[in-house]
Amino acid sequence: MVSSIARSVEVAELARRARGASRVLATLSGETRNHILLSTASAIEARQAEILSANDDDCELAHKEVSAGRMSAALFDRLRTTSRGVADMVEKVRAVAALPDPLGLMLTTTKLDQNLTLYKVSCPLGVIGVIFESRPDVIPQVGALCLKSGNAVLLKGGVEAANTNEVLWQIWQETIAAELGKDLHAVNLLHTRQDVTSMLELRGLIDLIVPRGSKSFVQYVAEHSAIPVLGHGEGICHVYIDREATLEKGWNIVFDAKTNYPAACNAAETLLVHEKIAAQFLPEMIRRFQAAGVEVRGCERVRALVGTSFVKAATELDWATEYSDMTISVKIVSSFDEAVSHIDRYGSKHTEAIVTEDENAAKRFTDLIDAAGVYHNASTRFADGFRYGLGAELGISTSKLHARGPVGLEGLTTYKYKLFGAGHTVGKTTS
Amino acid sequence: MVSSIARSVEVAELARRARGASRVLATLSGETRNHILLSTASAIEARQAEILSANDDDCELAHKEVSAGRMSAALFDRLRTTSRGVADMVEKVRAVAALPDPLGLMLTTTKLDQNLTLYKVSCPLGVIGVIFESRPDVIPQVGALCLKSGNAVLLKGGVEAANTNEVLWQIWQETIAAELGKDLHAVNLLHTRQDVTSMLELRGLIDLIVPRGSKSFVQYVAEHSAIPVLGHGEGICHVYIDREATLEKGWNIVFDAKTNYPAACNAAETLLVHEKIAAQFLPEMIRRFQAAGVEVRGCERVRALVGTSFVKAATELDWATEYSDMTISVKIVSSFDEAVSHIDRYGSKHTEAIVTEDENAAKRFTDLIDAAGVYHNASTRFADGFRYGLGAELGISTSKLHARGPVGLEGLTTYKYKLFGAGHTVGKTTS
Repeated sequence: MVSSIARSVEVAELARRARGASRVLATLSGETRNHILLSTASAIEARQAEILSANDDDCELAHKEVSAGRMSAALFDRLRTTSRGVADMVEKVRAVAALPDPLGLMLTTTKLDQNLTLYKVSCPLGVIGVIFESRPDVIPQVGALCLKSGNAVLLKGGVEAANTNEVLWQIWQETIAAELGKDLHAVNLLHTRQDVTSMLELRGLIDLIVPRGSKSFVQYVAEHSAIPVLGHGEGICHVYIDREATLEKGWNIVFDAKTNYPAACNAAETLLVHEKIAAQFLPEMIRRFQAAGVEVRGCERVRALVGTSFVKAATELDWATEYSDMTISVKIVSSFDEAVSHIDRYGSKHTEAIVTEDENAAKRFTDLIDAAGVYHNASTRFADGFRYGLGAELGISTSKLHARGPVGLEGLTTYKYKLFGAGHTVGKTTS
Repeated sequence: MVSSIARSVEVAELARRARGASRVLATLSGETRNHILLSTASAIEARQAEILSANDDDCELAHKEVSAGRMSAALFDRLRTTSRGVADMVEKVRAVAALPDPLGLMLTTTKLDQNLTLYKVSCPLGVIGVIFESRPDVIPQVGALCLKSGNAVLLKGGVEAANTNEVLWQIWQETIAAELGKDLHAVNLLHTRQDVTSMLELRGLIDLIVPRGSKSFVQYVAEHSAIPVLGHGEGICHVYIDREATLEKGWNIVFDAKTNYPAACNAAETLLVHEKIAAQFLPEMIRRFQAAGVEVRGCERVRALVGTSFVKAATELDWATEYSDMTISVKIVSSFDEAVSHIDRYGSKHTEAIVTEDENAAKRFTDLIDAAGVYHNASTRFADGFRYGLGAELGISTSKLHARGPVGLEGLTTYKYKLFGAGHTVGKTTS
């Protein structure tokens, strides 16, 4: 067994090589970068049998873990891929290749003096660290996003998918070498949990960490990383039914936000209803929830209105819980301001919606609420990179710096100021 | 003496009130925000005598500290203000008011469906914490930047300037109350070092910390803050004289980059010279440095070329040092790649310059070098918010996320996605 110090040296060395590769990537044309992606897509297609066979090996080992009760059936399901899964990988890599080049965009151009021009230009971040669970489709997709944006990447997948990941990583490695005529450590694979711990220490070598997985995992990474992290810990989204809401719109939006895909981070967890409309709105809403098998937990006013047999009593904890399930908490508020205060206190700055016909209330809500997404008369479920037209989604950010909300290729870029002069000095310019 | 626990409760309470104020600020029109700035500028003008009298009090106390050897003369100089200084404050606040509104900018507009439109809109960060040394002009200027961008601010200045700062803070407080017809804790003053420590813990209440001061201070803040920090630890900037450089351009640029204002973070600390041009370039360069009193520390090749009597031997430490003074380290490199590697290793990602007539080398340098500013045939001294046309400078960032290089009002904003629908649900849209 390799000692942890030896492993951390190894991870640092891998990161340094990735850093070297990132310098090469930063100078490749968009055409070359796309060509690498398209060749990789074709290679994945051509090597489907090899990928599926490696996946079979992983699944065989994993099956024993499931039988022994050491792995959940859900994890096993995510691990398995099929020819349809491989076709999806190919399609996703091609879709990223088809996106506009995020690099070299002239964000501003300023003429500072005769023959002295300043360009603010988009450029790669450098080296990205991505940590994900057992899904084997991450290596093609995230590899494509990183290379398209000129970044090198360190990938750490679940151990369950080791064989599948190894083949998919080899495909990147071999395609890049063939395209560039030399080895380039642009896509790198880490293997152990210890590797992740080592990676989180490498401030200066790695520019951004993207954890994909459970809330607790993302939180763990954020707390232990010296490197900026792109991710979101929780999605506690609210729908607020204002006194001027149209009932049918409210019922549809709330129902969709809760039940369309309850496990998603953009699903609603709490429904807030203005007291003036509660008696008209809530009984039918709760009837629809019951018919769909949604458990409702309400404040005392809700229970007094609808009956305690259908609505459990919500505790303080309920307002702060992301159920990720067919459960919703419901509260009657006395005013617009009370709704805003509740969201301020319990929301996770992800996505918040108001249902109202009062344009002024809608404007105030979308101005006041501090969240990545603020919606008027639309379901919180729209918060998604593909729906937003970003073409691909790296993740959703509930941070306010760098990138906010659904993040696509842009989140993998920064900018630099390029200044082109003809011998300009400050002393002479200002004199 | 107040216990430190009591103080941290107080700072948290102050931050919570600032958070409340930030919600009000987020809904003010650009016109109202500008009006607050202009009224504050007039109030500073009208209350000049009061400001100068408070500053006299501060200076009197500080003078004793200087006499007792507990305060440097330089610090004392920065503390003192005059009628000219007050006029400067007024001018700076008016200049910020005159800048374009950074809020409510439609960054993108995407039609997702019939009557369903997504706007990516610039908005305030929320609450900013600014820590600065004894300069009294910070409260007007930073207050103006924060309010213009709709943010509340917690300001902690040097204890030496306590009286001056108190008056300037009161002017903000009273003007805001008069303009809005109510008290609003938009500009807040902290008093002790302990307050700073408490502030750095308030993740969730404060969105961004801006430390202004010495390198070691900025580094301390970055290491102890749970909140994102905008600042830069070091400015180790290089000028690289390529083999195809025009000599006169090189001499002028290097001389300017080193001597125009050596204490600035954008001053050059190291000169790299291609071996093919070293014999033509270096003797005259070093003659000019000597004439100006610049100490030169060179690698062995430089000393062999120019003579050991004029050039001290540079040690490994020299390449990693920001002199902030009339000293420069000089190294002869064998290739373009060696220059790039040296900058990669020792640079602080601030500003890096190449002098060359080879357009291809210039392109490669500006693409390859990972720094906020990459310059061709221009002095590193141009790295400055005012020179960049940002209108005001909050600071310079050597981080790659959120804001990079000189940062103006834009660095105090983020964006949110506003989605306006007509009852849209994901279930129906995708069906």
